[in-house]
Amino acid sequence: MAKKTVELYDSTLRDGAQGEGISFSTDDKLKIFSALDSFGIDYIEAGNPFSNPKDLEFFKAIKARRGAKAVAFGSTARKGVKACDDENIAALLKAQTSHVAIFGKAWDMQATEIIGVSLEENLAMIADSIAYLKERGRTVIFDAEHFFDGYKENAEYSLEVLKTAQKAGASVICLCDTRGGSMPEEISSAVKAAAKVIDVKLGIHCHDDCGCAVAGTLAAYRSGAEHIQGTFIGIGERCGNANLSTIIADLQLKYNVSAVSPAQLKTLTDTARYIADVANIRMPGTMPYIGGSAFAHKAGMHADGVVKNPVSFEHISPQSVGNERRLPLSEVSGRAAILAAIKRFDPTLSKNSPQTRAIAAKLKELEQVGFQFEAASASFDMMVLRELGRFTPHFEIDHYKVISSQGKDGAEKANAVIKIKVGDRYEITADEGDGPVNAIDKALRKALEVFYPQLSKMHLIDYKVRVIAGKDTAAVTRVLIDSSDGSDEWTTVGASEDIISASVSALTDSLEYMLLKE
Amino acid sequence: MAKKTVELYDSTLRDGAQGEGISFSTDDKLKIFSALDSFGIDYIEAGNPFSNPKDLEFFKAIKARRGAKAVAFGSTARKGVKACDDENIAALLKAQTSHVAIFGKAWDMQATEIIGVSLEENLAMIADSIAYLKERGRTVIFDAEHFFDGYKENAEYSLEVLKTAQKAGASVICLCDTRGGSMPEEISSAVKAAAKVIDVKLGIHCHDDCGCAVAGTLAAYRSGAEHIQGTFIGIGERCGNANLSTIIADLQLKYNVSAVSPAQLKTLTDTARYIADVANIRMPGTMPYIGGSAFAHKAGMHADGVVKNPVSFEHISPQSVGNERRLPLSEVSGRAAILAAIKRFDPTLSKNSPQTRAIAAKLKELEQVGFQFEAASASFDMMVLRELGRFTPHFEIDHYKVISSQGKDGAEKANAVIKIKVGDRYEITADEGDGPVNAIDKALRKALEVFYPQLSKMHLIDYKVRVIAGKDTAAVTRVLIDSSDGSDEWTTVGASEDIISASVSALTDSLEYMLLKE
Repeated sequence: MAKKTVELYDSTLRDGAQGEGISFSTDDKLKIFSALDSFGIDYIEAGNPFSNPKDLEFFKAIKARRGAKAVAFGSTARKGVKACDDENIAALLKAQTSHVAIFGKAWDMQATEIIGVSLEENLAMIADSIAYLKERGRTVIFDAEHFFDGYKENAEYSLEVLKTAQKAGASVICLCDTRGGSMPEEISSAVKAAAKVIDVKLGIHCHDDCGCAVAGTLAAYRSGAEHIQGTFIGIGERCGNANLSTIIADLQLKYNVSAVSPAQLKTLTDTARYIADVANIRMPGTMPYIGGSAFAHKAGMHADGVVKNPVSFEHISPQSVGNERRLPLSEVSGRAAILAAIKRFDPTLSKNSPQTRAIAAKLKELEQVGFQFEAASASFDMMVLRELGRFTPHFEIDHYKVISSQGKDGAEKANAVIKIKVGDRYEITADEGDGPVNAIDKALRKALEVFYPQLSKMHLIDYKVRVIAGKDTAAVTRVLIDSSDGSDEWTTVGASEDIISASVSALTDSLEYMLLKE
Repeated sequence: MAKKTVELYDSTLRDGAQGEGISFSTDDKLKIFSALDSFGIDYIEAGNPFSNPKDLEFFKAIKARRGAKAVAFGSTARKGVKACDDENIAALLKAQTSHVAIFGKAWDMQATEIIGVSLEENLAMIADSIAYLKERGRTVIFDAEHFFDGYKENAEYSLEVLKTAQKAGASVICLCDTRGGSMPEEISSAVKAAAKVIDVKLGIHCHDDCGCAVAGTLAAYRSGAEHIQGTFIGIGERCGNANLSTIIADLQLKYNVSAVSPAQLKTLTDTARYIADVANIRMPGTMPYIGGSAFAHKAGMHADGVVKNPVSFEHISPQSVGNERRLPLSEVSGRAAILAAIKRFDPTLSKNSPQTRAIAAKLKELEQVGFQFEAASASFDMMVLRELGRFTPHFEIDHYKVISSQGKDGAEKANAVIKIKVGDRYEITADEGDGPVNAIDKALRKALEVFYPQLSKMHLIDYKVRVIAGKDTAAVTRVLIDSSDGSDEWTTVGASEDIISASVSALTDSLEYMLLKE
């Protein structure tokens, strides 16, 4: 691999936090900071201590850390205020980071119309702010906001902004496509023009408003930018920032850049999914390299090809980025994929065995009423064993009743009564919970633990509800439950018009799976 | 605008259906076909009549339609079979479309290793299949599968495949990056090489495995491709196909191509959202141009800038693609955005009014317990009116009880009892439903309609459940309800550990909003 020639700069905690629906607690930020650091990110833009005073606490908390450099983000001093008197600059210094990033306008119109200063004043503000921060011992990254739009309309002035920043002592000048409206070839030529007049390291900061943020970033890299900004899973204002996980994999695997080690690259998928979990967002399964579907081959012909030779439908090895190949089971996946999944249970089965046909038919039938097994392999296994006649239930639910109520005082209550049968013995019990699903979950386990004390080891780690074909509250509800016994994790699915019934079905599969495993 | 020089080819119904989790009924396909046609798509690849016999029914159903051309998709004849004897080719003819698309291998390794034919046989299969379909009166689009990977390894052979297809009578030769692993500059140079030896129209078909499908498609367009394939919202195998909605907007607004009329472009957002609804998938809010967040300005500074001059943070006008600007209300959006939203209720309020501060504080408090108002503006309005002391509830819920049960026969039942108070009158009633939420919804309306018969006009159009910070079944549940009275639509939110309580809260807001509106 080539020598490391790029530095990676992640802004999940700052620009990412500006994505709609994103909100980080200080604890979330610490978790994400650590994950990015372990992955091998060089610089982590961790907050704006002026606009968000909570961020100061965070900078205090990470002050002693080694590894990735934390960067405090802010703007140049405001109009008419000297850097030494500016509150925003003061907040940046209070963060006590070795590196700070400040943005200033690199588009003439933005200076004159939006902040209302003359072109000369704008340059003076930038120079004063950078020089002052540098005097105070900070390494300064200058974000040339709106550089590409400015370059299109007044190239001379935009380049003048960069020269001013360099002269004032910026260590990195990052060219920003703030509105996300520039095409990769425009980015490429503007970066080349900047590289002609600037000697310090050039950076690139793209947004995805035209669906070209990754390509724009790569075009900038090929034109001379070495400092690469983005957010690890692409979150950020509007359409998001350039997706750093995609860019890193492209740089390493397509351009032979070793920004991180191959071992770190193998943690790309886990790192991305961890960040999504902490941010509590649902990453699209289609996300390049790290998505759940990124190496899923659904069409029969693709599944066949990839089994013959992975190179036929995979441009890289999924393992190189810590992801895995999947042949999702669905009504269109064909009996070949189903056979591959059920041979574990009975190696004598063939594509044309009656059992294979019966399982394919059952799969289709269950999908039509709302089940989906692509993510719920434990429920798939249970279904196969049932169809093969190789499953004896460990318990039966005789009946249950769940009562949710709100009293005159406004307080909500939920309790459940359940009667189960194990062999020829019955157990009836009750429990209460936060909401009806929690109540029935607790009651069911309580009844079962009388017979199977080992179930106390098992716990739910996630519970997801999806309303499908939802046209009103009577739509079908699909419930996915992730369970763990401390060492293994498994996922089960249930579907019904009734959320309680869907949950009980997924819970039953999960409990049976645990009992079967032993 | 420039003359129309590109033709748009959508494969949502074929390659899109190969996306994980996607499954279309015939009715779904008809709806999507009509939407694509109205939007202005030229060619709609509508199914593979051989591998999916249900698709034949669909082709029959649309046979009489005018407008967009339906294209039947399949492969060349199989190894060792003449086109006139091949079942797949026969199925293509049975579809009775004027246009057919067939794919053949344009990478030497794929021919020899995956299908196991010699390089000469591969060319012969392609020539025979195209010529036979042409003889039968079909216009043939040839998909040169794996062209870009083939071109990298054996350019001469890949180009030979194209020449063979042209000679045999293909009307369009579409260059496919089947594995999605090519970078835009590689696509650009390979398209230029193809254009040197081919006179018929060249097409481009990209996948998003490197996050560059849109840029790769645009690079191909700039290098001579005029036939643009993709799927309208980017669904497809693995990471999906090139997102046609993004490409169309880029072509029209960045490259001045008029592929559709400006009026059709204004339906881009609605068309995309409609297709997502029919496909029953959740489009990322960050999707370029058409996403719910695509023109959402969350950071205080961006919101301020865009209010001063939209150009400051928007690269195009949201209206040009039928989307709209939003200043989402959240704890980080700042009092300026909140003020803009509440001035409608009281124009005398300022940023520093005690009411503005109180509403900002209430917003933050509710967000911390799981509410989110970004999408639920009706609930936001209700909250503001409550905080301003300008809201008198039309009803109160005295108490309710919901009972969900499963009997010995396995049948589920849900019923609800509710007592409400309107003025000094009480009404107690009960109803049953499919699941507890549906039961309480029906009982609440039944009680209310005694006092407010106009509520019978109102109905729920969507009901969404999201479990947040979900670590087990006791996690917080957020419910979003979309309601309609036939002319207006509005969204409300509720959050609680108890799904029933969250639903009742969102329902109550929705019913109050309807009563208030009148």
